[in-house]
Amino acid sequence: MAAFAAHTSATSSHYSPPGTAILLRSRRRAFPTRVSCSAAAAAGNKTVVIGVAADSGCGKSTFMRRLTSVLGGGAEPPRGGNPESNTLVGDTATVVCLDDYHSLDRAARKARGLTALDPRANDFDLMYEQVRAIKDGRAVDKPVYNHVTGLLDPPERVAPPRILLLEGLHPMYDERVRGLLDFSIYLDISDEVKFAWKIQRDLAERGHSLESIKAIIEARKPDFDAYIDPQKKYADAVIEVLPTQLIPGDDDGKVPRVRLIMKEGVKHFAPVYLFDEGSTISWIPCGRKLSCSYPGIKFAYGFGAYFGHEVSVLEMDGRFDKLDELIYVETHLSNLSTKFFGEVAQQMLTHADLPGSNNGTGLFQTIVGLKIRELCEQIVAERDAMTADAVKV
Amino acid sequence: MAAFAAHTSATSSHYSPPGTAILLRSRRRAFPTRVSCSAAAAAGNKTVVIGVAADSGCGKSTFMRRLTSVLGGGAEPPRGGNPESNTLVGDTATVVCLDDYHSLDRAARKARGLTALDPRANDFDLMYEQVRAIKDGRAVDKPVYNHVTGLLDPPERVAPPRILLLEGLHPMYDERVRGLLDFSIYLDISDEVKFAWKIQRDLAERGHSLESIKAIIEARKPDFDAYIDPQKKYADAVIEVLPTQLIPGDDDGKVPRVRLIMKEGVKHFAPVYLFDEGSTISWIPCGRKLSCSYPGIKFAYGFGAYFGHEVSVLEMDGRFDKLDELIYVETHLSNLSTKFFGEVAQQMLTHADLPGSNNGTGLFQTIVGLKIRELCEQIVAERDAMTADAVKV
Repeated sequence: MAAFAAHTSATSSHYSPPGTAILLRSRRRAFPTRVSCSAAAAAGNKTVVIGVAADSGCGKSTFMRRLTSVLGGGAEPPRGGNPESNTLVGDTATVVCLDDYHSLDRAARKARGLTALDPRANDFDLMYEQVRAIKDGRAVDKPVYNHVTGLLDPPERVAPPRILLLEGLHPMYDERVRGLLDFSIYLDISDEVKFAWKIQRDLAERGHSLESIKAIIEARKPDFDAYIDPQKKYADAVIEVLPTQLIPGDDDGKVPRVRLIMKEGVKHFAPVYLFDEGSTISWIPCGRKLSCSYPGIKFAYGFGAYFGHEVSVLEMDGRFDKLDELIYVETHLSNLSTKFFGEVAQQMLTHADLPGSNNGTGLFQTIVGLKIRELCEQIVAERDAMTADAVKV
Repeated sequence: MAAFAAHTSATSSHYSPPGTAILLRSRRRAFPTRVSCSAAAAAGNKTVVIGVAADSGCGKSTFMRRLTSVLGGGAEPPRGGNPESNTLVGDTATVVCLDDYHSLDRAARKARGLTALDPRANDFDLMYEQVRAIKDGRAVDKPVYNHVTGLLDPPERVAPPRILLLEGLHPMYDERVRGLLDFSIYLDISDEVKFAWKIQRDLAERGHSLESIKAIIEARKPDFDAYIDPQKKYADAVIEVLPTQLIPGDDDGKVPRVRLIMKEGVKHFAPVYLFDEGSTISWIPCGRKLSCSYPGIKFAYGFGAYFGHEVSVLEMDGRFDKLDELIYVETHLSNLSTKFFGEVAQQMLTHADLPGSNNGTGLFQTIVGLKIRELCEQIVAERDAMTADAVKV
């Protein structure tokens, strides 16, 4: 167990591997099977709804580009609408940014001393009502929060898509909205990496000082800890980004260690595994058959508990430097839900310009996209089968 | 690399994993290919000769029973001969104990202050001459060292078998004898385990005191270090037995950590691997699909250098408690050279009464037996093909 435990020592992780090497076969069955997908299908819903929660500056927009690409048709801002719209519309999926449900504009938040993270600055009643309507197949007039002006612009029409991606600070915060999600993902960036990323961006691009960056992060932290972070316990999949363990003392975030935590027992979601499902493995693919640049690549796979739920965990530390490294890794992972050999590599290459395309963030975002595509297809297929049965009866 | 390095920290091991995760593809080719088998075949030899070196009390006789069982037909003491004969004769293999080449009997060694480990107490000229003769297809009259009396008994006749197993203290000591070996194995028991085993046996069975056992080991050590241990650098395969790392502070040798070190580039010998050849892996099979008793089972696989030679290494720490654990592990190993599914488990079960049948010593001895069987078959096939070609010409 030592090999994996060494991997999972990040202070910010809530994932814990099993305490000993002993696990009874019956253990798996002790966890209840989630039936959100089938419940949604049974209710005759038309749109599959996916929630993606994360703090701002944590790569949600990159994730959305990867997801909509995998789901098919990509997604662009609505034509002829508000140029500051946060919505993306594609052939298959529509992305709605939950910032649009801010109930207080920037000035009002400032006046009341609230951050955008505070639930009191957001309208969950409307959020629930509109997501419910879309799921039922009805178009809605959704508010638009203008990030440039900080004002609430006139609403825009959102038609029910095949797949609705709800991204933002609070997709799993409100119990009613959470109940509408067919699948949920939490992007969990560790404090060290978040700090390194913000420094890279704000110091270079925005001219902030190191002290002011620290102050901004510290000011947001209480609300983040109170309202955003607790949502991860509801997520079906969590992507954790942690500092590398391949380079001692490295903390610039350029070589991340990324963990994909996958809840067991979620219908239509079969966790990805490495070599031997349900065992504990560490794997350094770099060797005789695959040459890697420093500091190499290391994978770990295992299982354990995450907020009391049984989970499978896949971890990648390091960076891909060459295409053959990525393809080599892809061929050794199972349950990827690809439709053809090399689809993960193809997706990563298509978006080579996006941040994280050479490391575990891009890899696991792409894999989550493939898993969601399969989940949606299965929900639709199941619904169609139920409809056909109902017609027969 | 940390996961495997943690595995390979035994003080007594000469195996070192690669220093970094970087290894050029061309590295493998830098090691010369050994051609001992083809050289033997080219010379038209009839008997395949395998050397097995180890200190006394290290399980050579158990190993011989496993080997002759795998090779086919087992092996028994010669009928109607000296009841103290050290030779075993079977349908396929004959085992010759190199103690028979002691040139000094017990009294003479005592008089000259020499141990049996000292080359001066052994007749390497005769050993070479007789192994050469057997390899050439001629029977020999081999001396017999009587372990009961400590005297040299009259010689016994040894006919050339298909496979000659030379087991003893010095099969790789003399350069000429070493040159006759088609494959060589060294059983390397770490000092901690050797001490634990001797205590178990001698304290319980022979009534020695702890102090006297320590004194006996210490007295043998200089000669062991000078004449026996250095042979391991010539071995094609080394079985190392080390203390477990699964139970902190455990040193009673009951749960061993066993390492199979396999030299690369040996003709007719394809090293066993776990999941992905040429990478670095640690694997705890116990988990969702396989339940294990405490302290569980842990495997490691990797590559590195051993006395300057490139090697692959498979390690097992822990014990099999149930048959399904053994079969599960067998199904995940590759290049086992089995002839049918489950042959390793079947062999282990057949000899369930032998020491080590529930741990890595029995597993790796059995695997080495399978590899030797295949190697011998390939040498014979190659020789037959060459003979057929020669006839045509």
